[in-house]
Amino acid sequence: MVKALEELAQALNRLPSIGKKTAWRLALHLLECDRDELRYLAECIGGIKDKVIVCRKCFNLSETEICPICASASRDGSIICVVEKPADVFSIEQSGRFRGTYHVLGGVLSPINGITADKLRITELEERIQTDKPAELIMGLGASAEAEMTALYLAKMFSGRGIRLTRLARGLPAGMELEYADQLTLSQALNERIDIRYNTM
Amino acid sequence: MVKALEELAQALNRLPSIGKKTAWRLALHLLECDRDELRYLAECIGGIKDKVIVCRKCFNLSETEICPICASASRDGSIICVVEKPADVFSIEQSGRFRGTYHVLGGVLSPINGITADKLRITELEERIQTDKPAELIMGLGASAEAEMTALYLAKMFSGRGIRLTRLARGLPAGMELEYADQLTLSQALNERIDIRYNTM
Repeated sequence: MVKALEELAQALNRLPSIGKKTAWRLALHLLECDRDELRYLAECIGGIKDKVIVCRKCFNLSETEICPICASASRDGSIICVVEKPADVFSIEQSGRFRGTYHVLGGVLSPINGITADKLRITELEERIQTDKPAELIMGLGASAEAEMTALYLAKMFSGRGIRLTRLARGLPAGMELEYADQLTLSQALNERIDIRYNTM
Repeated sequence: MVKALEELAQALNRLPSIGKKTAWRLALHLLECDRDELRYLAECIGGIKDKVIVCRKCFNLSETEICPICASASRDGSIICVVEKPADVFSIEQSGRFRGTYHVLGGVLSPINGITADKLRITELEERIQTDKPAELIMGLGASAEAEMTALYLAKMFSGRGIRLTRLARGLPAGMELEYADQLTLSQALNERIDIRYNTM
């Protein structure tokens, strides 16, 4: 049909979770938008790489050399939560329950896909641990086989240095009914069961 | 988190069918894209309104004053298919079965929503009919109550001028099993049943 429109739809189609039909619908919608809106969106997209850098300390996305979390005096620098990617920092921050700092690995070990230890920010974590001497390292790494392997790898690497090494709990997700929980989740929830105290109920 | 990223996610979130989570995922994806890709997408978006105009004759989207369909010598200008919007032209063209031309109304009559005859490109259709004297006018207008009302309105308006006035057939969609067809579709399929001939089966 119209070349410019087709090109736009194709460019949108290349984005994840945007199918051919959605791309086409979006392209037609954009055509109806007013110029200011289009210009704004175009600028947001075109400029995103210039505006966002990674924090020199934790490798989370940042607009400053040291991100607000690393720079904050109210965050506990002695606790480092190791996560896979910036989106994970965002998720944990949304929970509002963590007052420590982060270290973004940039992935998890996956030898099959060629992601070996040297592809992740493990050397940087090592250096940071030597400088900052944290009290605790939390493996905030998800529950996939690869994430667990990465957590074990890091735990082994940093054991015997007087650092408390922990990982996130496994168990029933909030709101889950037992009936719908899968076998693995249930057995982990059983294995990691904890004593009921009034303050933990 | 990061302001530029949040702004990008918010701008994407304003698009139809892009929820908050998808917008955020897209924003993070865009951050990983290379600069050329980002610049290209930004240009496609920012320039779309300058590159796409409407055809002076049929009001379909076009890059030229007269669209390729209207300008084509291989299209039958004596048959005009009246459609609601450019996306409908696209759908019919995809079928590859129509060799006539189009007229894009820009909507269907919907008095409740303030869309009266003067809001649609009906005067333009009238003028075109007077100039081009087509042999047939196909109402390619969908099966909603408003679309049917619009088709009737136009049929009434252009009747008695020696133009064949038709509308798209109603019946079972391709692949539909009788068991799942709704009452209305079934009764229309019955009403519009046709005699079986070898060449129409």
